[in-house]
Amino acid sequence: MGIPIFCGAIDVGGTKIASALFTAEGEISAREKVASERSGGDAAAAPVVGRIEALAAAAEGSGGTLAAVGICVPGIAYSGSGKVWAPNIPGWDQYPLLDKIRSSVASLRGLRSAPVPIVLESDRSAYVAGESWRGAAAGAKDVVFLAVGTGIGAGIISGGRIVHGREDIAGAVGWFALDPAFEPEYAAMGCFEAEASGGSIARKARQKLASGQASSMTGLAGGTIDAVTAEIVAEAARVRDPLALEIVAAAVTYLAMGVANIVSILNPEVVVLGGGLFQASDLFLEPVRREFRRWAQPLAARSVRIELSALGEDAGLYGCGKLAWETIEKAGT
Amino acid sequence: MGIPIFCGAIDVGGTKIASALFTAEGEISAREKVASERSGGDAAAAPVVGRIEALAAAAEGSGGTLAAVGICVPGIAYSGSGKVWAPNIPGWDQYPLLDKIRSSVASLRGLRSAPVPIVLESDRSAYVAGESWRGAAAGAKDVVFLAVGTGIGAGIISGGRIVHGREDIAGAVGWFALDPAFEPEYAAMGCFEAEASGGSIARKARQKLASGQASSMTGLAGGTIDAVTAEIVAEAARVRDPLALEIVAAAVTYLAMGVANIVSILNPEVVVLGGGLFQASDLFLEPVRREFRRWAQPLAARSVRIELSALGEDAGLYGCGKLAWETIEKAGT
Repeated sequence: MGIPIFCGAIDVGGTKIASALFTAEGEISAREKVASERSGGDAAAAPVVGRIEALAAAAEGSGGTLAAVGICVPGIAYSGSGKVWAPNIPGWDQYPLLDKIRSSVASLRGLRSAPVPIVLESDRSAYVAGESWRGAAAGAKDVVFLAVGTGIGAGIISGGRIVHGREDIAGAVGWFALDPAFEPEYAAMGCFEAEASGGSIARKARQKLASGQASSMTGLAGGTIDAVTAEIVAEAARVRDPLALEIVAAAVTYLAMGVANIVSILNPEVVVLGGGLFQASDLFLEPVRREFRRWAQPLAARSVRIELSALGEDAGLYGCGKLAWETIEKAGT
Repeated sequence: MGIPIFCGAIDVGGTKIASALFTAEGEISAREKVASERSGGDAAAAPVVGRIEALAAAAEGSGGTLAAVGICVPGIAYSGSGKVWAPNIPGWDQYPLLDKIRSSVASLRGLRSAPVPIVLESDRSAYVAGESWRGAAAGAKDVVFLAVGTGIGAGIISGGRIVHGREDIAGAVGWFALDPAFEPEYAAMGCFEAEASGGSIARKARQKLASGQASSMTGLAGGTIDAVTAEIVAEAARVRDPLALEIVAAAVTYLAMGVANIVSILNPEVVVLGGGLFQASDLFLEPVRREFRRWAQPLAARSVRIELSALGEDAGLYGCGKLAWETIEKAGT
């Protein structure tokens, strides 16, 4: 037995940075959450470097060593260049995050030690890696994580490997074409996202209320139509508000079609549903599980499991830990 | 320099078996085509074994050796079991083709030589492997082959590897849900296939003609509505027959949506269009290239190339050759 080895995980969000150490078995320790630097650019990269230092110190404090670090960003990580695009972090558009982190870590540590391997990923790829490691798809090699919140996107693992696509933007399923009657909103965000994201559900509700349709939603929003959210639509649907039920039913149809398309093209073992919308799983989970079968390739539909995210907000953190461990395992073979 | 090494390729079709030898660079020789055995079952496996013997003899006749053989079947090859499902070959439903071939080859060759490695694939996976080796996507690592003929299916390569899915049925894009207004035909073949395959285009034309709509198609079919095919619809569309143009335009909409969905979820470098329908590329290629951009994720749409199959009927053969060579390269590393 040598000294214990840990991998670090850093989930960079728009407002918070979560970090933790993981053992090879996925046991978590030294977990922390700090505020991110809202001014963006290099200032937003600095606390990420701080987290690496803190994780190295925590690993050493446990009598061990930090062997690798996985980092995910709220957007796209470009695997060839180490650059990132994160729409909610100012200045992170083709921002060279990996280079910045590596040079900062090197200058802080000087010649004290060899550079720690760092792997950078898009958040949606981290989610699917986390869920297939210790979450709702533990052990599965063909998994899709479908995130439905303000927007819609997917992380994909096929045959045990993350699907990146030519330019690391695979999984843009918010752009699924699901209705031949093209609507103007589709041009900005894609058909699937315009019909079924949490943001679109709220927008549709506000539009119908503004056009004069009666609903308990206005009251739930304190009389202000502009304050209607997807949560309020869900709340109204639970008390059988007809307009809210109509909006939820339409979203379920598109969600079922989107899940079906994922199942037919990728034949996954598990589709994990995550993101804010599925916090209203009482309204969405069983209807989607039922309706997607109508559309999907029947054999693929029969064998797939449709599951809620088991890790929730921790999916990205676990995924970063898993990806860091994979770099160690690859280096070891 | 040792003796030359060849890999064999065998494309098993419903009516013919094509075979050839390939060098590592994709140069083809000893090419043959024989009729397949229509009675199915073991009788249909026998000529495949015969092809392996013929390829081994041809390799030896060139002073070389047969190092591996790739075989594709018109349906699904199950990678775990070596069984196949081929709807047009009687008895090939969970038929243990790989075991049968291996034991026949072994008994023919006796102890003369070590068993030649055999790799078995679904035809659509062979098509995409062939096109990404020596065809329209040569050198690309993220490629989808979309076959539109009697049915619709896709072969997928992501990051240089074939996407199989959990049960080797990935690529069942004929089941893409593209229209929330569910039609009864969708249950049997999937929405995309029911709207845009060659078979469906012909069926829609016959239905409209049978309901009394006037069109030059009836005359082109010799007065027999039942004789109207997708080729006749295309022929009529070329002379601006209004009903044929309407049917073609509707198919183009769904084809563009299907291509867009592939582009958005997989971010491929090339989508290769093949199958019988794209023999009428004058009617389908440019409209699909134009219309898919309306639906797909814009960055993914900007970078992808949409190309006609360059290998045509040889795509499967080249793919088998490529897959055989990959097994040699893997064994060598």
